[in-house]
Amino acid sequence: MSTATASMQECIQNCQECQTICADMLTSHCLVEGGDHVEQTHVKRMLDCIAACGACIDFMSRNSENHSLYCRACAEICKACAESCEKVGGMEKCVECCRTCEQSCSSMAA
Amino acid sequence: MSTATASMQECIQNCQECQTICADMLTSHCLVEGGDHVEQTHVKRMLDCIAACGACIDFMSRNSENHSLYCRACAEICKACAESCEKVGGMEKCVECCRTCEQSCSSMAA
Amino acid sequence: MSTATASMQECIQNCQECQTICADMLTSHCLVEGGDHVEQTHVKRMLDCIAACGACIDFMSRNSENHSLYCRACAEICKACAESCEKVGGMEKCVECCRTCEQSCSSMAA
Amino acid sequence: MSTATASMQECIQNCQECQTICADMLTSHCLVEGGDHVEQTHVKRMLDCIAACGACIDFMSRNSENHSLYCRACAEICKACAESCEKVGGMEKCVECCRTCEQSCSSMAA
Repeated sequence: MSTATASMQECIQNCQECQTICADMLTSHCLVEGGDHVEQTHVKRMLDCIAACGACIDFMSRNSENHSLYCRACAEICKACAESCEKVGGMEKCVECCRTCEQSCSSMAA
Repeated sequence: MSTATASMQECIQNCQECQTICADMLTSHCLVEGGDHVEQTHVKRMLDCIAACGACIDFMSRNSENHSLYCRACAEICKACAESCEKVGGMEKCVECCRTCEQSCSSMAA
Repeated sequence: MSTATASMQECIQNCQECQTICADMLTSHCLVEGGDHVEQTHVKRMLDCIAACGACIDFMSRNSENHSLYCRACAEICKACAESCEKVGGMEKCVECCRTCEQSCSSMAA
Repeated sequence: MSTATASMQECIQNCQECQTICADMLTSHCLVEGGDHVEQTHVKRMLDCIAACGACIDFMSRNSENHSLYCRACAEICKACAESCEKVGGMEKCVECCRTCEQSCSSMAA
């Protein structure tokens, strides 16, 4: 990114990592484990998280004047996804990237 | 949509119309006309509008608990896009679908 | 759509219907029913179908010279999703919209 | 990514870089420069490239059986975008990331 600030570049990277790790864990871990891992609320929170990161990357990469709206939403959704992953258990990798993304997006939204 | 309320179904349709009309007008009208039509702020507002509608459709179609965040953002962005299209002129079709989408998304976000 | 042909407009509408019906059925039906409905291959095919329709709408609404690549991929993916939904059972609504979308996208890709 | 092969992980990263660099260059360079930079074919190729990378990331991150369809399309579209950026001139950064992404996606599609 030529024009983005260092903090925006870092936030884009955190969103990219969160988006791909959650998508990978959902399809290659949760859908294999079954049980709590495919419970409606949990899967919906993971799908929301993947979509929220995607939208956030999109608005930041276009240097949009509206990126803070999507960063704020992404922070909230990552927080809920991290909590759901902690409750389900065995999803430390997701919890970690969601927490990092939440903090990064909160800063960008401020 | 089997489970969505009638108002959510209507909002999805308004977002779908706004997304495709703005994308069509941007690529087949603005990029041909040039001048004010390709001024940075105007094009960025149209790209934001197309992306905002897409994200909003996505969250509503998954009956997400977080859809109101995306409806609220979409309403704000559609309003700015409508104003930009009015200023540029000759874009009544965009102005109309953005206004309709703005009202629909505002209601869903309430 | 002002500039799209009638067949492209119809294909966009079929993709929009398929995208939102599959997203709704996945989150409000499959994730509630459990069992075969949340089996890995089935859920992955539904997620592919939702994403394929979204990409297809995007390229068609921009009147892209590359839309046929995405229509061809979407046709193939809708076919696989329809077959998966038939096998799982009780998902007639999905089967129907996937079949319609498959035919429409095949025609656009030709 | 826990389950993706090393080459898929690398391809995802190349697509992410290409998506964000092209989006940044379009909105912060082309829309400021004007002239050839906002010519219809060029802008449409850049929009196609951004969207193609996004779809490709999405299918790879879900370890989709259909990812090769999107990698093949992405390779073709990145090639056309690189050529357009070369013709316009002063867009070396875009040319470079599009070429890298093209090669990476071609390998994944094979």
